[in-house]
Amino acid sequence: MDFGHREEHTDDQMLIVQANIDDMNPEWTSFITDKLFAEGANDVYWIPIIMKKGRPGLMLNVLVEETRLAAMEAVIFSETTTLGLRYVHASCHRLAREFVTVLTRWGPLTVKVGYHQGKLVQMAPEFKECEQIALTHQVPLKQVYEEVRSKFKEAT
Amino acid sequence: MDFGHREEHTDDQMLIVQANIDDMNPEWTSFITDKLFAEGANDVYWIPIIMKKGRPGLMLNVLVEETRLAAMEAVIFSETTTLGLRYVHASCHRLAREFVTVLTRWGPLTVKVGYHQGKLVQMAPEFKECEQIALTHQVPLKQVYEEVRSKFKEAT
Amino acid sequence: MDFGHREEHTDDQMLIVQANIDDMNPEWTSFITDKLFAEGANDVYWIPIIMKKGRPGLMLNVLVEETRLAAMEAVIFSETTTLGLRYVHASCHRLAREFVTVLTRWGPLTVKVGYHQGKLVQMAPEFKECEQIALTHQVPLKQVYEEVRSKFKEAT
Amino acid sequence: MDFGHREEHTDDQMLIVQANIDDMNPEWTSFITDKLFAEGANDVYWIPIIMKKGRPGLMLNVLVEETRLAAMEAVIFSETTTLGLRYVHASCHRLAREFVTVLTRWGPLTVKVGYHQGKLVQMAPEFKECEQIALTHQVPLKQVYEEVRSKFKEAT
Amino acid sequence: MDFGHREEHTDDQMLIVQANIDDMNPEWTSFITDKLFAEGANDVYWIPIIMKKGRPGLMLNVLVEETRLAAMEAVIFSETTTLGLRYVHASCHRLAREFVTVLTRWGPLTVKVGYHQGKLVQMAPEFKECEQIALTHQVPLKQVYEEVRSKFKEAT
Amino acid sequence: MDFGHREEHTDDQMLIVQANIDDMNPEWTSFITDKLFAEGANDVYWIPIIMKKGRPGLMLNVLVEETRLAAMEAVIFSETTTLGLRYVHASCHRLAREFVTVLTRWGPLTVKVGYHQGKLVQMAPEFKECEQIALTHQVPLKQVYEEVRSKFKEAT
Repeated sequence: MDFGHREEHTDDQMLIVQANIDDMNPEWTSFITDKLFAEGANDVYWIPIIMKKGRPGLMLNVLVEETRLAAMEAVIFSETTTLGLRYVHASCHRLAREFVTVLTRWGPLTVKVGYHQGKLVQMAPEFKECEQIALTHQVPLKQVYEEVRSKFKEAT
Repeated sequence: MDFGHREEHTDDQMLIVQANIDDMNPEWTSFITDKLFAEGANDVYWIPIIMKKGRPGLMLNVLVEETRLAAMEAVIFSETTTLGLRYVHASCHRLAREFVTVLTRWGPLTVKVGYHQGKLVQMAPEFKECEQIALTHQVPLKQVYEEVRSKFKEAT
Repeated sequence: MDFGHREEHTDDQMLIVQANIDDMNPEWTSFITDKLFAEGANDVYWIPIIMKKGRPGLMLNVLVEETRLAAMEAVIFSETTTLGLRYVHASCHRLAREFVTVLTRWGPLTVKVGYHQGKLVQMAPEFKECEQIALTHQVPLKQVYEEVRSKFKEAT
Repeated sequence: MDFGHREEHTDDQMLIVQANIDDMNPEWTSFITDKLFAEGANDVYWIPIIMKKGRPGLMLNVLVEETRLAAMEAVIFSETTTLGLRYVHASCHRLAREFVTVLTRWGPLTVKVGYHQGKLVQMAPEFKECEQIALTHQVPLKQVYEEVRSKFKEAT
Repeated sequence: MDFGHREEHTDDQMLIVQANIDDMNPEWTSFITDKLFAEGANDVYWIPIIMKKGRPGLMLNVLVEETRLAAMEAVIFSETTTLGLRYVHASCHRLAREFVTVLTRWGPLTVKVGYHQGKLVQMAPEFKECEQIALTHQVPLKQVYEEVRSKFKEAT
Repeated sequence: MDFGHREEHTDDQMLIVQANIDDMNPEWTSFITDKLFAEGANDVYWIPIIMKKGRPGLMLNVLVEETRLAAMEAVIFSETTTLGLRYVHASCHRLAREFVTVLTRWGPLTVKVGYHQGKLVQMAPEFKECEQIALTHQVPLKQVYEEVRSKFKEAT
């Protein structure tokens, strides 16, 4: 197996940065998400909300280290239409992770696994690899996932 | 009591007109809703959806008589950003409705009631009137509703 | 294997019945759902929508045979607060289904499978049984699912 | 009346624990909710969100005392598919609550009431009891609520 | 140009106040929003959530200065049906703002602009003014926006 | 200008195909969307819904010509986890469309325009091109859109 090195840990120096947006072209969301990740965001997600005057808006959420706040603000103010943002301090608890290779009928495929207090609790086939197999071999994506999960289960 | 005249009926000549919109300023939704009602829409509502490329969009829905289709299209094409719309045929079953007056501590207030096969099944205080009472008398809106509902119950 | 008897088929005599509701206590939704199923609904689901004046409402949807319309209307008008409803004609394509038993470390468990044109395309562990095993044996529910899926895969 | 004992108070030792999940079977949500409540969660709720690559995900939220964090983490990591979670510190302001009995045509029923600074501001019929009456007596649930609210209003 | 006076700044004394509500008439949301703004809220928004027993609820969110907490609580407890609320501390970063006038074919119209570190990053036509022009001159609202944006671009 | 050839028209031979899904890995949605488009879908979108037992599910929607129904069913049954689907007949009204080139500071860029009854009602910068310019020239995406819209306005 191909063991990774990250240890389970809690990071207390995180921020959740939020902006409510009701006057922006929603086409831009994926571009903004990509840019925030490129500038160091740990996670980016959007929540449908109902704003002033019953307007259907979107709340942008960015999970990021405190030290990267200015970089996030630069992206948010230049790429979205918001006139302000807010943030709250947060702690992130991350499992120890490693990448494991399993042998399937289509060759070796990667599984990301997670450990909580030394115990394996998560296993997730790598989406991009599975998608590629499904496209190349013309098989249902769910069948690829099923095979990967089953082979992982046999091996552990 | 002040009985209205509408009979319970089913109208089979209705359309549900829909447009998926992912590139429009959401500020415009209330204006568009108002304009569609002004042109004869029976109902207008918006549904948050996820469109191509994972974009958070809005589906505009208009319930309208078949004969008013062109008027709805005129509004939708001139006021939204869509390049197309779709519609399905629908039937509407509407209860017999009447407006009833109940006497509350703040004076007479209106209740809209609905009958299914001659039986009273719905009663709804008029929002605008209750809101006005709450503002004028500085009482919680929910207290106004409670009073109206209770007085209606006593009277029937 | 324990083969069921339902054949894949399309039913063209179905209705989708809808009501937009913006003035009802949401606590009642599960009760209403249960009652509609008890009266013959094939499916019941709720969609968050934005209604007139920007109000956050719920659209009740009932999938049902045309012959059961009156029974659905009776429930909808007596249990919800709506003054009207609408319906569109729909066709339902249902896969051939059967229940298969697989042997797991916790004993036999049921899998519901689906066939499209004679080919097995779906397999779903029965939620209620898996939940019971998770509770009784104090194991994660996802582990029960994993085991059932894996055993099914081995057997086919 | 049957007065309860809880006093209005603010608890500053609370956490909101969150995990964004885009690769889990949604069938498991109710089981996970139940388990978190069983382990001491004060509240559990799910928010539809849009995650990386435009994926429709769910954000699990758990409101819980700081001292119960480890128990929540144990459930979240063993039952969901997440590789991490985050939490923010929160304060909870809870009203004084008591249970009051009102006499209805179907016998005594319970109302949960809430006091803010000594003033009665909330009253909520107990859902489970009302649902039971609706099922037993074959009356609309909304009629049961209406009766309970009306009787409570008369008594106060 | 008509320069405003607000400077870009970060306010660390803010609260996000939240209440999950599953038993309230959604008609009341706009009234509650208005009242919270009138009592000093900086922002008010609602998020559709899924609560205990799978109930579709609404999470009320109020962004407000710490010193206005009691006023928000008074509104929330008297106008909604909640028995409790929670809040987290937040910082708000607000851009420097000013109102600029541009000359359009329909006369002068206002644009709200925002500056981040002295650089113009936002420009937003005033909705109310544009809506009025659209109504008065019977032109599409999007055309009014387009004209205002274009004239602003020419002038800068 | 580079005029396209499509005429405004209404197509009455369309279907809206729907499947409610509450037991599928949401990671698969983009793959399924892509596959449906590849097989001839005119549009694909997902709606967050609340299903039986309060489960947060997703409703898959496919807008497609009646003649492509079997191809859509093949994808839906092989790639999702549903045991059934439904469809309703729909009409699609599509504007006349053409692609117009405008000259910007970054070179020529494409605008998609739409005509309703011979009148230009829509203009939309091509997202992919604008995104590429924003990435290549390191300018905000919204600035690219603003420039394209402004240049188009000048030219017409």
